Amino acid sequence: MLKRRLFTPGPVPVPERVLLAMAQPVINHRAPDFLPVFQRCKTGLQRIFQTEQPVLLFAASGTGAMDAAVSNLLSPGDHALVIQGGKFGERWGEICDAYCVRTTKIDVEWGRAADPADVEAALDANPDIKAVYLQASETSTATRHPVKEIAEIVRRRDDCLIVVDAITAVGVYDIPMDDWGLDVVLSGSQKAFMLPPGLAFMGLSERAREFMKSSQAAHYYFSLDKELKGLETDQTSWTPAVSLLQGLDVALEMILDEVGLEETWARTEKLAHATRESMRAIGLGLLAPDDPSPACTAVLVPDGVDGPELRKYLRDKLGYTVADGQGKLKGKIIRLAHLGYFDRFDTIAAIAAVEMALAAQGYVHKMGEAARTATELLAE
Amino acid sequence: MLKRRLFTPGPVPVPERVLLAMAQPVINHRAPDFLPVFQRCKTGLQRIFQTEQPVLLFAASGTGAMDAAVSNLLSPGDHALVIQGGKFGERWGEICDAYCVRTTKIDVEWGRAADPADVEAALDANPDIKAVYLQASETSTATRHPVKEIAEIVRRRDDCLIVVDAITAVGVYDIPMDDWGLDVVLSGSQKAFMLPPGLAFMGLSERAREFMKSSQAAHYYFSLDKELKGLETDQTSWTPAVSLLQGLDVALEMILDEVGLEETWARTEKLAHATRESMRAIGLGLLAPDDPSPACTAVLVPDGVDGPELRKYLRDKLGYTVADGQGKLKGKIIRLAHLGYFDRFDTIAAIAAVEMALAAQGYVHKMGEAARTATELLAE
Repeated sequence: MLKRRLFTPGPVPVPERVLLAMAQPVINHRAPDFLPVFQRCKTGLQRIFQTEQPVLLFAASGTGAMDAAVSNLLSPGDHALVIQGGKFGERWGEICDAYCVRTTKIDVEWGRAADPADVEAALDANPDIKAVYLQASETSTATRHPVKEIAEIVRRRDDCLIVVDAITAVGVYDIPMDDWGLDVVLSGSQKAFMLPPGLAFMGLSERAREFMKSSQAAHYYFSLDKELKGLETDQTSWTPAVSLLQGLDVALEMILDEVGLEETWARTEKLAHATRESMRAIGLGLLAPDDPSPACTAVLVPDGVDGPELRKYLRDKLGYTVADGQGKLKGKIIRLAHLGYFDRFDTIAAIAAVEMALAAQGYVHKMGEAARTATELLAE
Repeated sequence: MLKRRLFTPGPVPVPERVLLAMAQPVINHRAPDFLPVFQRCKTGLQRIFQTEQPVLLFAASGTGAMDAAVSNLLSPGDHALVIQGGKFGERWGEICDAYCVRTTKIDVEWGRAADPADVEAALDANPDIKAVYLQASETSTATRHPVKEIAEIVRRRDDCLIVVDAITAVGVYDIPMDDWGLDVVLSGSQKAFMLPPGLAFMGLSERAREFMKSSQAAHYYFSLDKELKGLETDQTSWTPAVSLLQGLDVALEMILDEVGLEETWARTEKLAHATRESMRAIGLGLLAPDDPSPACTAVLVPDGVDGPELRKYLRDKLGYTVADGQGKLKGKIIRLAHLGYFDRFDTIAAIAAVEMALAAQGYVHKMGEAARTATELLAE
């Protein structure tokens, strides 16, 4: 009897109440009974994004919103600064290339946080840079970038946007869009929102909305201008993913009104901390020891253990799906999720599974010591 | 965010596949598409009961089948031997009283197994005893009675039945109805069958079917004679609980064909053993140290800890519903389930929760040591 447990930093498990909400009959998106659902989602998203700016919804995965954040804000030949400290940082570069946006790239060692001084230097050297693209939490390396400090630097200029892929940051930890002066903040449904994949969200500052007006890049499906107009009358331009919005309605209520946003951040951080310490307790190293994101933990596969075999054992023998490394980290790390619908008992059990899988792959340690450490740390 | 987890020895969690099967549209029980469902349930029940005798199904909880096993087999004034080693043993006595069946009772200390020698002596002293009623696994005390040895004694006589409440034994461990010569074996859906409550099962030997013919006790809903006739044409006398049978169909396939019956017993025993040892590892005592049932473990609430408060903390603060003691054990034990849809990761997490709850109630121990012990024992 193999129970399947999802332990990846997106998609994450979906609460039963949300599943049941999504299993309701589909309602027409122009019918009056959809309106209150949409309105609650609209205001709930503003609360979780910590913004009074509009937050758009797209029937798309997070990458769709990333695409829109280039193709709607810049023009071919414009200059952008891209912070690349992982697979998702590289994606910003690829999107800029696709829209013929020139890029200056700051390459950050994978597993390290970007240095704000490098951003400052790049902006000083390139006064024509119109936007800085970065991740808040680089999911591929489980690393957190110093968004607040970087935003302070960008904010010294009025002619430059800061565009933050916060796909594994919104609802994960405190990243106040308005307070920090972020121009564009993105997220996706299959992360802290505890939903299946299929929805992307985008908060847009007034400055970003101004930039839109002069953008010359080609786009059609992702038209921020059109979506913003629709949002004023609680509509999306194209057919929205109705069931996912019915689920979002419930998930936002759970996060914002039942658990509380700060409590959600605190729980996620606590699970992340206990996971890091429990892995250290059995001698394992972490990819991002100094700048860890609480979204997930990247554990280095120890010498003598084969990464793919370890994950295969976890999946096929123990029922746990954990994430591999991406790009050049493929096979070298496993990533354990904390964001979303996970609690301390999920985490203790998953840690026990990792211990068992490691032992089965020949890694010698005191069996159960990681589970004990996690139990101890999560008891408070 | 409080995830609710059911950890009682019935009801137990229901697998998603079974829930989905039960969520199908209700089919009419006389319609042709119900027939294959019923037939698969009928033969699957025989396999899990390890019998070639008919196994009846009732829309009832297990106590309904207990009632039927008195009211259909004996007559007012008949003499029965009742083994009372817990709340469910006492229930046999109450049912006999209700049907004016005279009883000789063997009172067994709660948490101890019955002694077959006592059964032998009682039968020798009372040649008119027509039936012996007992539990295989006395759920209220988490104790296992020696059914095989007692059956050997009863089987020396042709004019006496052995009637076994195996509600938390069938599918939990090896209790072969035919091989051991058991006349009546009962079980219920919300135990090893991994279903919601609402179905009771009863295997009937040829000898039991003979006894039926001379029974004079009053009964109507529970008419074994009528049900046996119906079973020949794959029907029940009254409307069956169709959705539960749709679920039973899937659950039996999972237990018998996917996991395997022996593997299910082995898993349950392993979880029980690890739980007992992990509780001992943090200094706790068990109610049935010598004769434990693998269905559940009864942990003694330690001195200085209030049992109801402990369970309340587990339920309200940690989300875990565990069982209280029953009758005179109320508040003195907590019972942790192993039968049904539980795996080792469920068990490790539940043990961590018990540790946390104990500490919150003032019990001093090395936090996490029980979870560590369970992880170690369940790693193999």
